[in-house]
Amino acid sequence: MRPELLQKIRTLLPEHHPRPEIELLYAMMRDYPERGGKGVRSELLLLSAQAHGVTVGGAGWESALWLAATLELFQNWVLIHDDIADDSEERRGQPALHRQYGVPLALNAGDALHAYMWGALFRSGVPEAHSEILSMIHRTAEGQHLDLAWVQQGQWNLNATDYLDMVRLKTGYYTVVIPLRLGAIVAGALPDPRFEEAGVALGAAFQIRDDVLNLIGDAGAYGKEIGGDLLEGKRTLIVLRWLETAPQEQRQTFLTEMAKPRQDKQPGVISQLLEWLLGSGAVQEAQGVADTQAERGLALLEQALQGAPDRQAAQTILVLAEGLAKRQA
Amino acid sequence: MRPELLQKIRTLLPEHHPRPEIELLYAMMRDYPERGGKGVRSELLLLSAQAHGVTVGGAGWESALWLAATLELFQNWVLIHDDIADDSEERRGQPALHRQYGVPLALNAGDALHAYMWGALFRSGVPEAHSEILSMIHRTAEGQHLDLAWVQQGQWNLNATDYLDMVRLKTGYYTVVIPLRLGAIVAGALPDPRFEEAGVALGAAFQIRDDVLNLIGDAGAYGKEIGGDLLEGKRTLIVLRWLETAPQEQRQTFLTEMAKPRQDKQPGVISQLLEWLLGSGAVQEAQGVADTQAERGLALLEQALQGAPDRQAAQTILVLAEGLAKRQA
Repeated sequence: MRPELLQKIRTLLPEHHPRPEIELLYAMMRDYPERGGKGVRSELLLLSAQAHGVTVGGAGWESALWLAATLELFQNWVLIHDDIADDSEERRGQPALHRQYGVPLALNAGDALHAYMWGALFRSGVPEAHSEILSMIHRTAEGQHLDLAWVQQGQWNLNATDYLDMVRLKTGYYTVVIPLRLGAIVAGALPDPRFEEAGVALGAAFQIRDDVLNLIGDAGAYGKEIGGDLLEGKRTLIVLRWLETAPQEQRQTFLTEMAKPRQDKQPGVISQLLEWLLGSGAVQEAQGVADTQAERGLALLEQALQGAPDRQAAQTILVLAEGLAKRQA
Repeated sequence: MRPELLQKIRTLLPEHHPRPEIELLYAMMRDYPERGGKGVRSELLLLSAQAHGVTVGGAGWESALWLAATLELFQNWVLIHDDIADDSEERRGQPALHRQYGVPLALNAGDALHAYMWGALFRSGVPEAHSEILSMIHRTAEGQHLDLAWVQQGQWNLNATDYLDMVRLKTGYYTVVIPLRLGAIVAGALPDPRFEEAGVALGAAFQIRDDVLNLIGDAGAYGKEIGGDLLEGKRTLIVLRWLETAPQEQRQTFLTEMAKPRQDKQPGVISQLLEWLLGSGAVQEAQGVADTQAERGLALLEQALQGAPDRQAAQTILVLAEGLAKRQA
């Protein structure tokens, strides 16, 4: 994340209070933002603002920074709540917030951060951004609900279309579509309609890569426990593809294990499942889908940015989007 | 809640989606609002708007209704999350949302409803209300944090000032101060500065009464399990007062029981504690504090409303505030 952006977030969030207990809340709100996320979404927004004519330090830059802070704060409160929902162990290489302070305090800190997110948005002074942020949260919550409802209902009878519907809502809008649109809006431009399709495709590629890294990534660079999705029973494209062709016996072992709560899952069985998954070619197949989505998204994005006044910023967006869709960590 | 207000909330929240899983999310968001809360906060806001010159159906009324909807939606998403934090069993006479659908889905539905709350606020078209709502959420989250942090840290070394600090933040602003202020603002008036002190006192009376009803109320009218606060280890004024003078042995029994997680608490011991509490006079003492706060709040509120153009609405506010501070259910 750009240092001046982190600075904005630091000035927005409160730090001191006469009551030490309330200072703990403040420290909890600052915790995830201070862990140093990559800041991909805010960077996309700032580059989009530049591509559409805002210059660093010029008119609109301050607003763009506050909108970027809005996206970062969104990401952070959502992560606090997601980690509770999934009972994740780690986030950005450290224990998840609820594992440090318990669910009640972490849940409340996420809510408090959500409110400060709106505070950042109001500081941007861009009223047209209100409906963008609303629609971003509505869609992300719908995607999150789909993901969680399948786990909750033990639903495995799902295909690639179901998965892509879910990641479109859960990841595509807040990761790519809305950052690109807000960058145009803060520059006073009409967002190109192709941002939507491009962003949804790139978001899908990003999420599939995330699922792949969760299985075969480097724990240090990835920042979460490897294999965590499997323990959490996440419906990833990899697993769904594998289930379609897996031998009946493997499929049955998988479904039996997944029906257990996380703490009852057997490390030995999980290793076996991981071996089957990795040996089945499903990872490569999912990677192929990610590549197709990435190519399509990049092509559309290139077209959408053709008229952007700042060619260099537009070019940097394409490089960043490619890195996002083909991420290695 | 006024029918036209419930209607506003119904039109704001989505109902249909091609995916049945997402329709479940929509049903979850509508669940608490449809359970028929008393709507005290929205009613205070609407009456305050009238007292300050807005007439039903006249200029500003539509805005006032959307602000009232904002407060109701706030109350509802907060209740969903509070019920998770406290692992409450019931809300408004029915199972708490997370007991019906599990924590992950309920947590997410609360977040989704939080976003729709901002949608209601934007529909009001009153930009001055943004900072009021922000500051209301900040304070409520701080009060909620205090309450939960004491439970989490096993902190019982607290006095009446600690308790009143907590309820001021947790209850006072969103129940009384902000509804009164928003009513003035939507009418184009400057909120009387005495609303703050009046509202904080009335909010404290309201919360102490809530604590009393949680011990001795009628389950049907109250809508939550009687004695739930004790099971959840809530720091109520009643318990804090009792602890100050309780015999050492009773105090020790209490602290030992409270150190256990909710599911390990013994019904027999809880009954015994309840008996000691009720026999100690602490309930009456807390009730005395509530009465003092109520008198002070009402006197201040009467002064603050003296210049209000609509005398009848101002009078109704005083009646409502008195009912709130001396509630029987």
